[in-house]
Amino acid sequence: MPESVKHVNQIPVEKVSAGSHTYRQVLIGPDEGPNFAMRRFIMEPGGGIPAHTNTVEHEQYVLRGRARIGIGDRVYEVKAEDVLYIPVGVPHWYEVLGGENFEFLCMVPNRDDQIKLVGSD
Amino acid sequence: MPESVKHVNQIPVEKVSAGSHTYRQVLIGPDEGPNFAMRRFIMEPGGGIPAHTNTVEHEQYVLRGRARIGIGDRVYEVKAEDVLYIPVGVPHWYEVLGGENFEFLCMVPNRDDQIKLVGSD
Repeated sequence: MPESVKHVNQIPVEKVSAGSHTYRQVLIGPDEGPNFAMRRFIMEPGGGIPAHTNTVEHEQYVLRGRARIGIGDRVYEVKAEDVLYIPVGVPHWYEVLGGENFEFLCMVPNRDDQIKLVGSD
Repeated sequence: MPESVKHVNQIPVEKVSAGSHTYRQVLIGPDEGPNFAMRRFIMEPGGGIPAHTNTVEHEQYVLRGRARIGIGDRVYEVKAEDVLYIPVGVPHWYEVLGGENFEFLCMVPNRDDQIKLVGSD
C-alpha cells in the first residue's frame, strides 16, 4: 500500500458490541499495514469491556482518561502515557474511572482474532 | 512474555544518532512483544531526521507538537492525533515546527531494519 497521512477525526467510529459505552476506530487496518493493525478505543464514563480472552496479543498506549484494568489475576489503575502488554489468551477487562473518556491505542498482529468472554463457552 | 504495565517516564531515553535533537524510547521491544515493537520518538524544537529509508514499514501516531514530514515526493504538515503509514523503502524525513516538542509513536515489525540515509551509499 502507498503512504497515508490522516487525522483520527476522518476515521469511522464503530460500537464495540462486547463492551458498554465503548467505541473503536481502525486507524491502520490489515488492508493497509502488512503485519499489524492500529486501532483506537474510546470508552465513555461508566463504560468498559467485561473479562475476555483474545487469540492475538495487545500492545496498548493510553492516550487520555483513567481506567481500572484486570489482566490475569492482577488489577491495575492506568492513566495517560501508560503502556500495556497483554499476552495471547490472558483474560482481561476494562472499567472506566472518573468522568472523562478513557482512550487508548491497541495494536494487534494481522491474524485471526477469536474473542471469548470469560465464563461463556 | 507475561503481561506488563508501565509508564513512559520509567523507560530509558536514548539519543537517535541519525537525527538532531531527537530521542527514542523503546516502550515494548522485540524481547517483550512477539511480532512488533512500540517506540516513542521525541524531537525538540529545531530537531528532526534527514531523508532516509528503512527496511520495515512504520505505523505512527502523533502524540503532541507539529512537524513537516516528507514521504516520497510529498510534504505533509502533521499535528496531534494524525496517523501515518510509511511503507518499506520509501524515503522520509522529519522537521519539527514551532516551539514545542514533537512526539509520536512508531510501531515496526520485529524484523531486521537497515537504515540508509538518502544520498549515502
